[in-house]
Amino acid sequence: MSKYCFGIDVGGTTVKCGLFRTDGTLEDKWEIVTRTEDSGSKILPDIAKTIEEKMASKNIKKEEVDGVGIGVPGPVNDKGDVLCAVNLYWGYKELSRELQELTGLPAKAGNDANVAALGEAWKGAAAGAKNVILVTLGTGVGGGIIVDGKIVSGHHGAGGEIGHASVMHGEEEACNCGNRGCLEQYASATGIVRMAKKELESSKEDSKLRLETEISAKAVLDAYKDGDALAVRVMNKVGDILGGALAIFATVTDPEAIVIGGGVSKAGQPLIDCISKHYKKYAFSACKETPIMTASLGNDAGIYGAAKMVIK
Amino acid sequence: MSKYCFGIDVGGTTVKCGLFRTDGTLEDKWEIVTRTEDSGSKILPDIAKTIEEKMASKNIKKEEVDGVGIGVPGPVNDKGDVLCAVNLYWGYKELSRELQELTGLPAKAGNDANVAALGEAWKGAAAGAKNVILVTLGTGVGGGIIVDGKIVSGHHGAGGEIGHASVMHGEEEACNCGNRGCLEQYASATGIVRMAKKELESSKEDSKLRLETEISAKAVLDAYKDGDALAVRVMNKVGDILGGALAIFATVTDPEAIVIGGGVSKAGQPLIDCISKHYKKYAFSACKETPIMTASLGNDAGIYGAAKMVIK
Repeated sequence: MSKYCFGIDVGGTTVKCGLFRTDGTLEDKWEIVTRTEDSGSKILPDIAKTIEEKMASKNIKKEEVDGVGIGVPGPVNDKGDVLCAVNLYWGYKELSRELQELTGLPAKAGNDANVAALGEAWKGAAAGAKNVILVTLGTGVGGGIIVDGKIVSGHHGAGGEIGHASVMHGEEEACNCGNRGCLEQYASATGIVRMAKKELESSKEDSKLRLETEISAKAVLDAYKDGDALAVRVMNKVGDILGGALAIFATVTDPEAIVIGGGVSKAGQPLIDCISKHYKKYAFSACKETPIMTASLGNDAGIYGAAKMVIK
Repeated sequence: MSKYCFGIDVGGTTVKCGLFRTDGTLEDKWEIVTRTEDSGSKILPDIAKTIEEKMASKNIKKEEVDGVGIGVPGPVNDKGDVLCAVNLYWGYKELSRELQELTGLPAKAGNDANVAALGEAWKGAAAGAKNVILVTLGTGVGGGIIVDGKIVSGHHGAGGEIGHASVMHGEEEACNCGNRGCLEQYASATGIVRMAKKELESSKEDSKLRLETEISAKAVLDAYKDGDALAVRVMNKVGDILGGALAIFATVTDPEAIVIGGGVSKAGQPLIDCISKHYKKYAFSACKETPIMTASLGNDAGIYGAAKMVIK
């Protein structure tokens, strides 16, 4: 084990960078712009350059660095090849090999949600757990599966694509992925708003949500916390679908902890209680007490998980 | 790597034993009786004795043996402790440690369905695949998840308990586990019979199944293959539920292959086609072409998987 490692989290607008000690201490954190022009061909050279500059400024030698881990928004297989990353304008790319060549350091790559799951399992909400399911509730629903302390990337790089588990077979509206009834259609911020709008349309019942000009997931969750009957009904449906889905996922890998991340998770304990109540209803006996908790690393989960990937 | 290893598969009435070369060649196969008296305290000593005798008769030295793997009908955690195994009259037991002490050989333990999955991923239907989901359709529905060539035993030893994924939330009848709507209630042999009986009761429609005095899963599957309209309807429901469940499981670990084992899988390709048709309908795009295949090792899957666990 060397002294340092780098964790890189590539988003569509910025690249988050972290310099870590291999014990998990975050030494330094900074961002660079994601230059997506020319089919995103500048992104990796920019990353290599910022790492080189950081090492020079801190007087860190290559021998002191375990490597560079990188998370990207797209499917990554277990060889570290990204299959495509539309927001970065990338097609198929031997990501870990290219980054290794550009930096002269060992490199490993993973899907961003998977990498965030590893971060939460390493130093976040589920610190120390070897077996974790992370679900991120944001604009969409992402996920990451950790088994034996490692990311499950899957045969097609689709490990942890639990947002596209088809859990409601009667659904009429289509998901962005083309299927119908995906978890994402109910439990994402967008899904929560969709569910609330349907509920508002189906009745004339009074609700705080009728005062909103543009309903947001936060407004639904705030109304839920305030006991607004309609919002409670909406969140009970969301909790039933999400809790039920988590109970199914738990029969696959039987995790030590289930971590809820993403913007929606800012609703905190009331959301967790709502999901847990429904989860327990459906969970297999051995898994009924598996704790469900909010993520704790926020936007840093990606750089933590990326760094963890390369520690020897 | 040594020359030999042993694979042991403990059932309620017999213990299947295999002597393997570490390249996967089955050298010898035999059975002993499972002596469940005295809280099953004779089972492990009997296994140690038969291994010792086999080694003596073949003139095999301890240094030539990688170890003994054992699969048992009950949850086993990743330390190799069995939490309980009702059919063997065992409570909590440090299984791999005890077997190691009794044999003087390295020992590893796993749940029987998980171990069978490893066998199929090693030398069976999915030979060479590192990432596999096995579902066994027998009296119940069992399962085994292989990730990166290893069994996912899970935090409570419940990894792969996919038979108890609660997939039909409206179900009124209870599963043996106490929950309602478990996959096992529809896709096991018992489940198929239950579904057929319901279908027969709900109509007066002609069907070959009305000629049976006691309906079996085999009779339903035979009638399905013959194009019996009522049996086709039953198997379409079963296929829809099972295919839909497999599509959800596939979003978790994104396997290279899905293997169907157990007695029901003897129905062969027509059953696979039925499951695949519904699986494709619900699967996430990246996983739609994941092959679904019948297990090929039959009752030997357990000894193969058990042996594989200990190969260095």
